[in-house]
Amino acid sequence: MALGKHPRGRIVTIGDELLSGDTVDTNLAFLASRARSLGLEMGRAVTVRDREAEIADAVRCAAENAEVCLVCGGLGPTSDDVTTAALAHAAGVELELDDAELAVIGRKFERMGRRMAAVNTKQARRPVGARWLPNSLGSASGFELEMGRCAVFVMPGVPRELERMMTAEVEPVLRHRFALRERPRRIYRTLGMGESDLATRLQGPLDRARGWSAGLSAVFVHYRPAMPEVTVVVEAVPDERGRAATPAELAELDDTLREALRPALYGIGGASLPRRLVAALTRAGLRLGLAESCTGGGTAAMIAAIPGASAVLDGAIVAYENRVKKALLGVSERDIEEHGAVSEVVALAMASGARQALGSDLAASITGIAGPGGGTAEKPVGTVHIAVSDGQTMVHEVLRLRPDRPTIQRAAALWAQKLVWDRLEQRGLAAIEVLD
Amino acid sequence: MALGKHPRGRIVTIGDELLSGDTVDTNLAFLASRARSLGLEMGRAVTVRDREAEIADAVRCAAENAEVCLVCGGLGPTSDDVTTAALAHAAGVELELDDAELAVIGRKFERMGRRMAAVNTKQARRPVGARWLPNSLGSASGFELEMGRCAVFVMPGVPRELERMMTAEVEPVLRHRFALRERPRRIYRTLGMGESDLATRLQGPLDRARGWSAGLSAVFVHYRPAMPEVTVVVEAVPDERGRAATPAELAELDDTLREALRPALYGIGGASLPRRLVAALTRAGLRLGLAESCTGGGTAAMIAAIPGASAVLDGAIVAYENRVKKALLGVSERDIEEHGAVSEVVALAMASGARQALGSDLAASITGIAGPGGGTAEKPVGTVHIAVSDGQTMVHEVLRLRPDRPTIQRAAALWAQKLVWDRLEQRGLAAIEVLD
Repeated sequence: MALGKHPRGRIVTIGDELLSGDTVDTNLAFLASRARSLGLEMGRAVTVRDREAEIADAVRCAAENAEVCLVCGGLGPTSDDVTTAALAHAAGVELELDDAELAVIGRKFERMGRRMAAVNTKQARRPVGARWLPNSLGSASGFELEMGRCAVFVMPGVPRELERMMTAEVEPVLRHRFALRERPRRIYRTLGMGESDLATRLQGPLDRARGWSAGLSAVFVHYRPAMPEVTVVVEAVPDERGRAATPAELAELDDTLREALRPALYGIGGASLPRRLVAALTRAGLRLGLAESCTGGGTAAMIAAIPGASAVLDGAIVAYENRVKKALLGVSERDIEEHGAVSEVVALAMASGARQALGSDLAASITGIAGPGGGTAEKPVGTVHIAVSDGQTMVHEVLRLRPDRPTIQRAAALWAQKLVWDRLEQRGLAAIEVLD
Repeated sequence: MALGKHPRGRIVTIGDELLSGDTVDTNLAFLASRARSLGLEMGRAVTVRDREAEIADAVRCAAENAEVCLVCGGLGPTSDDVTTAALAHAAGVELELDDAELAVIGRKFERMGRRMAAVNTKQARRPVGARWLPNSLGSASGFELEMGRCAVFVMPGVPRELERMMTAEVEPVLRHRFALRERPRRIYRTLGMGESDLATRLQGPLDRARGWSAGLSAVFVHYRPAMPEVTVVVEAVPDERGRAATPAELAELDDTLREALRPALYGIGGASLPRRLVAALTRAGLRLGLAESCTGGGTAAMIAAIPGASAVLDGAIVAYENRVKKALLGVSERDIEEHGAVSEVVALAMASGARQALGSDLAASITGIAGPGGGTAEKPVGTVHIAVSDGQTMVHEVLRLRPDRPTIQRAAALWAQKLVWDRLEQRGLAAIEVLD
């Protein structure tokens, strides 16, 4: 194949558990993401069961329509692992037992201090003509096999074994064999505005930007909603004459889109809101505390999930029960009686109470009705009050979220972080920046 | 098609974000899981990009090989949503604008107090001959379309909209049209034992049970690891003569497996550990408090995610910073200095401190090193101490978890809940029961 041409890719993931719904297929997303960052265009993915004929059929079809095919799953030692046999079948070759590989597997078991079981012999078989791909984390080696014009890479389904084999063994081969170049894209992260609102706001600015250059004329815009966030992805797609926007041309969109996406935009690039918040707080030398009711600790957990969070997170008081709101956050009995636990007054008291109790520079609070029970006509399920106290001022917002408990809890936790972010931005301590 | 025959199913999921690796396809797992519980055998799933020709090709191929095809994604109002046009293309029919549907969409926007954008008109178009599937949660209705012998159901890609439409609109049609019968299975939920250990322990008991009846002789056992949990699924598969285990026969396995899976087993059926914990605490009339360090509130959030958690959850003190451990949990300076914040002594002090500060009947604590930084030779990343205090006694465990921050945090949160569970079981307040 000509160097410089974008090879077409296919993914085949294998496993009964994927088609019974017992397992969410994170391997597919992992392979797709690695392929994307290599500039390998994935046109399709197919998921099949552990059945020899079905696997052979899917791989054959993929190999006929692509130059690279990434296959994973079904390389284990047990009777439901039939991928190797299926690949031999698909390629029309025999299976051969490789004594050298058998010795490799034996040594792996030795190192673990275990005896190699008879079933593991199976893992030393490969289709004739295949080249082994070493697996330093498990007993199942993968292999590469040429089928017509297509390079087929077969890897184990255990996520960390797959990840290691893909990055350490497969990617170097792909980079070497094809002139791979990533397709540039620009990611705009927003919170608080719907997909169609964003699309309407962007239409004018994007139409104008398309006139700036041939590359920009052909950009493709995706909207990825994950309520309350929508991520806008602007991707460079080649026009009929093969001209695609360069990263520098895409970056020229920033100022225009920044204006159009205000005040929902909080960042450019892949980094999440919690990551940006931790980065901004670290730079500002400020520490954060939280007071959570309906989110039950989910906000603190999102921040604690970021490596390095300990530099900025003091902790949280999860005051699920009103008694705790009073005892640890200093919320007054009267405020709860007069305004209810889900109210502006209580949210503000929780924020300043958390700031004090945790000794933090600033604190955010969340109190609301996550449902399914507990709603009233005046305060329906989804009513959430959030507040931020930073010693200078207090800010508050009331949200009407929907539709169900997990979505309301997740959205409330993210909105509260956005409120902190907005306050930092106002004080000049956070800015919309490029962060991946 | 003959009633009683198992219809063959296919899934088609649509979205550039699935093939760029930006989004893990939970919709595929959801549809597969619903299909399984309906007894609809899913032979294959295909994931394609938002490209009209590619979608049309995938759906056409699926419809030729199945009686039911579930399609999702690409029904939004924006320019990258091309699924409806692709379906018309695949079926060889025109698109028509449906004025009644346009009015439905208009009313949805009215109710949200927003103006319907011009782009939303697109969502009132359907392939000629299609029947709308109402969407009470969003603007995009789905539709059903017959293609040859195959019923094709097209649903939105927003997970909650898809979930509602599948269960409320599509499943009743499927149940009515086909004589669907679920394949019986029994789910055993365990925490703390590896996949191969479980398999070794179960081999003998299962071999013996296979002799009990023809149906049991053909059961299929899957191990689904999601560290630190492994779910054991025993599924009734018909033998060569078509005899499969009945639900009652599968239930006969309980006593034998319960013995073999001790002490890792905590429940039978689909219900998660947090759900079972909330149910047991509710029944016992006990309230729980938490003291979390490295999990950052994730344990409390897992419990707060369960509807009805307010009956048992007082709250949590997330003491990420040592100052908070001292101020709010009463951990002594000396204990932290002598033993370190990640130690048995501090874990025990945190648990009893939380019980006191939150006024709870019992409290659990978690303190550990989630990484990537902070590990030492003596206390490597993944060292986590957990403890429970219930006013009668204190229990403690030290864990060595791996491999990365998110896995360690999630595993620690679940282990702590298991420790609470074990304590309740010891006191006769929790039991292994069937709960879905």
